[in-house]
Amino acid sequence: MTKARRGIYAAAITPFNKDGSVNVTKLIGYCRHLLGEGGCDGVAPTGTTGEGCSISMRDRLALPSAFAEAGIETDRVIFGTGAPSSGDNVELTRSAVEAGYWNVLVLPPYYYKSPSDDGLFAYYANLVDKIAHDDLRIYLYHFPQMSAVPLSPALVTRLREAFGPIIAGLKDSSGDFEQSRAIVDATGGVAEGFDVYPSSEAMLWDGLSIGTAGIISGSTNAFAARVQTALHAPEGATRDRAMDSVKAARTTATKYPMVAAMKQIEAWRSGDDSWTRQAPPLVPLSDAQCAALKADLEGIGAPVPS
Amino acid sequence: MTKARRGIYAAAITPFNKDGSVNVTKLIGYCRHLLGEGGCDGVAPTGTTGEGCSISMRDRLALPSAFAEAGIETDRVIFGTGAPSSGDNVELTRSAVEAGYWNVLVLPPYYYKSPSDDGLFAYYANLVDKIAHDDLRIYLYHFPQMSAVPLSPALVTRLREAFGPIIAGLKDSSGDFEQSRAIVDATGGVAEGFDVYPSSEAMLWDGLSIGTAGIISGSTNAFAARVQTALHAPEGATRDRAMDSVKAARTTATKYPMVAAMKQIEAWRSGDDSWTRQAPPLVPLSDAQCAALKADLEGIGAPVPS
Repeated sequence: MTKARRGIYAAAITPFNKDGSVNVTKLIGYCRHLLGEGGCDGVAPTGTTGEGCSISMRDRLALPSAFAEAGIETDRVIFGTGAPSSGDNVELTRSAVEAGYWNVLVLPPYYYKSPSDDGLFAYYANLVDKIAHDDLRIYLYHFPQMSAVPLSPALVTRLREAFGPIIAGLKDSSGDFEQSRAIVDATGGVAEGFDVYPSSEAMLWDGLSIGTAGIISGSTNAFAARVQTALHAPEGATRDRAMDSVKAARTTATKYPMVAAMKQIEAWRSGDDSWTRQAPPLVPLSDAQCAALKADLEGIGAPVPS
Repeated sequence: MTKARRGIYAAAITPFNKDGSVNVTKLIGYCRHLLGEGGCDGVAPTGTTGEGCSISMRDRLALPSAFAEAGIETDRVIFGTGAPSSGDNVELTRSAVEAGYWNVLVLPPYYYKSPSDDGLFAYYANLVDKIAHDDLRIYLYHFPQMSAVPLSPALVTRLREAFGPIIAGLKDSSGDFEQSRAIVDATGGVAEGFDVYPSSEAMLWDGLSIGTAGIISGSTNAFAARVQTALHAPEGATRDRAMDSVKAARTTATKYPMVAAMKQIEAWRSGDDSWTRQAPPLVPLSDAQCAALKADLEGIGAPVPS
């Protein structure tokens, strides 16, 4: 079994050094926190919230072996390895699988707009062919607002038919529950071994009830423990209250630029201001946004700095 | 003088080997053709028509030194070095300048949509700071249809004010002549040392008359010699006829996926079918498109295979 365990994933934020390189030690310590008291079943580093596409190839290639050396469990990590170049995508994926991380989250090539399904199929087929190993597990990454290259249910089905369990699932960052449902309907969802992950924990129960595998979310960087509370609450009023708390936290997070907000919250939690550094073109929250976020966190009963 | 000479540039297409790597020898031979009988004053490799963002970092980094070893004149090349990661952008640019190619065409970071001008400024400022040499010449690459990240005249002006002649010009691939005019108006155009290049040779004379520096175009891969004819024709009926011929060729080219059409035409010209290979997600022309293109080329009096 090489497939990543199902559950609640954080699209982990990435700490940068002053020179723009990744602070690997800090990232690993942070992922340990997420997988422990942070409440996550798994982490998805170098995704959109992790500024993965803004990290240099050099740094991205070095991450998986560092995770392995640190002993981060391989079935609790899904590395983002998408790139506009299929050659770079193969190199990034190879660095992950060689370190034992078989689960990868793969954007479509996102430079050219309106590519054909044949062209997108060729990109993913190239990855399968070049890695050439049955243990590879690819999660397709559907995020039309950011990649501007959507993945249709027809393409997902075609890839699944061509490559079977290697096409392991799909992260649906569209925010559109009907899109997640369409993918589950087209593939059979978890009942057929295809793991769809909506991007918002506000869809947790609705998703699980139709056959999704959990959540991969940006806001679970700060709020995964709440999600676990809701997940393990007895059905009825207790669970409803817990889900209301999850939804309130998610609503708060989406009022701000997500990456900047999660980094600011981590800076407050850890007492380490360097967490607010971002890679261009993203920028930290303004002072006014910080003040508003702090007030919002108080309003939902989240820990805030004194 | 490190700045690229003004004139007619082709955004050169890129030949790929079967394994997806760049055929460097063939690319250099092809650029020599473009700079000779092909009719180009300069070439812009690894742009959008060159599938630059689809080429692996490894291959992109190796190109400039190969061009230098082949003796391609350094003031006739503008390498595309944009990347979603500012770290990769710096490495690509460094590989160019270390080989003597100081002129680079730089997309904005194109993964995150609707970035702030502060974030875009930070990306270009990082490049200037890291290269740290007065001879660097950056051409901003405005291509909203493809990058989905436009560059505003206000941002261009701000960069120019901050970094002077290092911000050397802008390739305007919007296809919108009024956009080119707005950038010329904001910067002063060639009179102030700022070289705006529209992307279509159909705008040649209109552009030059308002202060652009020439053309960087995809379709000049096939049709630059026509453009030179128009450029050197005596004003009046002769020039008008020559420009009609240029416009007819451009209209033909834009009826097809541009990259695939230019590669098919080069495959016919050179008798080398491997030119039709593309990097995912782009795909070659279909048989029907090839037949239609051949008929169209005959219609405009362009050389076609027998």
